[in-house]
Amino acid sequence: MSSYKTINFDIKDQIAYMEFATPDSANAMTSEMAQEMAQVSEICLTNFKLRAIKISGQGKIFCGGGNVKAFNEEGNNLEKYLETMATNLHVAIANFARCKAPVISIVQGFAAGAGLSLVGASDFVVSSDSAKFTLAYSRIGFSPDGSSSYFLPRIIGIRKMMDLMITNRVLSADEAMDWGLVSRVVPEDSLIEEGQKFVESIAKGATSAIGMAKKLLVSTFEQSLESQMALEHLGIATMSRTADCKEGFKAFIDKRDPIFNGS
Amino acid sequence: MSSYKTINFDIKDQIAYMEFATPDSANAMTSEMAQEMAQVSEICLTNFKLRAIKISGQGKIFCGGGNVKAFNEEGNNLEKYLETMATNLHVAIANFARCKAPVISIVQGFAAGAGLSLVGASDFVVSSDSAKFTLAYSRIGFSPDGSSSYFLPRIIGIRKMMDLMITNRVLSADEAMDWGLVSRVVPEDSLIEEGQKFVESIAKGATSAIGMAKKLLVSTFEQSLESQMALEHLGIATMSRTADCKEGFKAFIDKRDPIFNGS
Amino acid sequence: MSSYKTINFDIKDQIAYMEFATPDSANAMTSEMAQEMAQVSEICLTNFKLRAIKISGQGKIFCGGGNVKAFNEEGNNLEKYLETMATNLHVAIANFARCKAPVISIVQGFAAGAGLSLVGASDFVVSSDSAKFTLAYSRIGFSPDGSSSYFLPRIIGIRKMMDLMITNRVLSADEAMDWGLVSRVVPEDSLIEEGQKFVESIAKGATSAIGMAKKLLVSTFEQSLESQMALEHLGIATMSRTADCKEGFKAFIDKRDPIFNGS
Repeated sequence: MSSYKTINFDIKDQIAYMEFATPDSANAMTSEMAQEMAQVSEICLTNFKLRAIKISGQGKIFCGGGNVKAFNEEGNNLEKYLETMATNLHVAIANFARCKAPVISIVQGFAAGAGLSLVGASDFVVSSDSAKFTLAYSRIGFSPDGSSSYFLPRIIGIRKMMDLMITNRVLSADEAMDWGLVSRVVPEDSLIEEGQKFVESIAKGATSAIGMAKKLLVSTFEQSLESQMALEHLGIATMSRTADCKEGFKAFIDKRDPIFNGS
Repeated sequence: MSSYKTINFDIKDQIAYMEFATPDSANAMTSEMAQEMAQVSEICLTNFKLRAIKISGQGKIFCGGGNVKAFNEEGNNLEKYLETMATNLHVAIANFARCKAPVISIVQGFAAGAGLSLVGASDFVVSSDSAKFTLAYSRIGFSPDGSSSYFLPRIIGIRKMMDLMITNRVLSADEAMDWGLVSRVVPEDSLIEEGQKFVESIAKGATSAIGMAKKLLVSTFEQSLESQMALEHLGIATMSRTADCKEGFKAFIDKRDPIFNGS
Repeated sequence: MSSYKTINFDIKDQIAYMEFATPDSANAMTSEMAQEMAQVSEICLTNFKLRAIKISGQGKIFCGGGNVKAFNEEGNNLEKYLETMATNLHVAIANFARCKAPVISIVQGFAAGAGLSLVGASDFVVSSDSAKFTLAYSRIGFSPDGSSSYFLPRIIGIRKMMDLMITNRVLSADEAMDWGLVSRVVPEDSLIEEGQKFVESIAKGATSAIGMAKKLLVSTFEQSLESQMALEHLGIATMSRTADCKEGFKAFIDKRDPIFNGS
């Protein structure tokens, strides 16, 4: 396991594991944590063998948002501190979004502020049935960052997003599911097991096709209909050359489940 | 109170109040009303002290759509009349959308046509539980205007929008809530009280941060991931200089509710 | 009735009927079918008298996706085959989307792969209560095509789209309704009758206004607020010149249902 101060990072069986490791401060975001996230995201982006990336948090809370206590101690240096933190957090999020491997976040306790931003930026979210979600930026006079104003409106629409941004309402796991914010809700007791099972099932997919699907989705709202179809056309033609496509065809003809190797 | 013919307009305690004042014709949109809306929207846009804008309608109906009787009387002048009306209505909507202060519409009875367009263009909508919503443009051979084809698809998606545009189906308040079209539904009897309470609660927020959040949201679908995060970065750095941010931090550390002054 | 090998195509009473006619292979998409779809879509695009386009499938399944057996037989020619098929399918979808007349798909049994793509690309979908929906591309190592990565995220958002693309989960008709993927769900036994009734009701609408509404909607996410309102302005001014608008006004004043002729 590589050594970082605020996170744990490991790669095993083509799955990357990034775990927030400051449970005593609710895994709250600091400039140091953002910098370490940027570092590991770079590793993920350029490791073409990866088939899934799991993000989780130690302890009772996934990620409690920005570390306001740390921010406060910066005094007159706050603006510079925030800029460095935002730069690194945004590098991390861009790398994870541009990465071929899908990103799955496992959420317990609370996903607040930057924690909810990460929920938005993930490809899948498995949530404990007792988890809660809140944006909370404007509660301390902040505007949203961490890509939350990019991904969340594309998931829940702009009216619900306005509500999250301005009233800082707190969603239960069931509400988050009803809003389409999380992919799966599982009992608190089985979150670790079910979360890992979900990650492994995704990691068995046709990773190149998944990566192409991610790529098509992340920028779809910027494309015209015809441009997007041109990208789809190129995508499916490229996929037809992959080993996983050949296996997919064989399995389909043989009426069995495919065994993809991710290439 | 300023003097207009089709609306009432007032500013009190940093809250702007725009009230449709032609209840005898269901507060239906006319060219004159659109012109007066454009005038007051200009006042709102440039009054940097404002912390909320409330839109409401006198009588039993919030806004019954375009005033077809008035349109019909225009005869051969109709196209020119509509162009002037659309120009002014669109100026008003752009100003409200670009305004720092959030816009809250309070809906009773019916929000039809341009009334539903305004519902879409608002930042929050508090609805009576007996209110109804319909687009109704194509019923008189019109295509939608009033920004409805911009905001509504970003709230409810394009399939439901197509249904509203083409079948002119009428939604109940509960359906509108289920579709995510309204922010809150309250009993008809308490709409005035609950609506005002909601407006005042929003007006107590960190107005600069709210304005930045509005700004990030209104154009998010036109931005790439990295561009949007660059705007978020600039936003949060700018917010760190505000008085409300300093108060937000203090209140967080002191574990009390913040008292924002909107600057 | 015109003569095609994989589809039936007919125009009657200003309604175009395109029916998939290879029920023995689950109306699965082949290069030939895509080519014939492109041909009839061209006819629809340039027939300005059309008031609705109905898409349906013979037999028990609307469209079972790509014809993997046919793909498999292509061997080394697969990539070229897929490119020709995607080119034609995308021409067909672009033509239907740019067509003034609204497109209504009637779905029974299964809408899988390209079948679900067509569901996304339609303006309305009437579904049997026993129909099922799945994307299924990545199951054979493909990335999505057929405009699915354009329309579906604009209907259901990117989180649910990711789920459809990567886990290939199968939605029931009720789930598809809950997700906003289909416009109407009707009992299996009455699908043919109810589907036709729905198509005919849409065909009685103000077709020019419907076409303008379609046009405004298909590209709304690429437009800024002010640009979209400029398009709305031009749209409503243009509509005011139509016969249907004059009839709409008269009917409104006379308090009767309008009788539009589509011009």
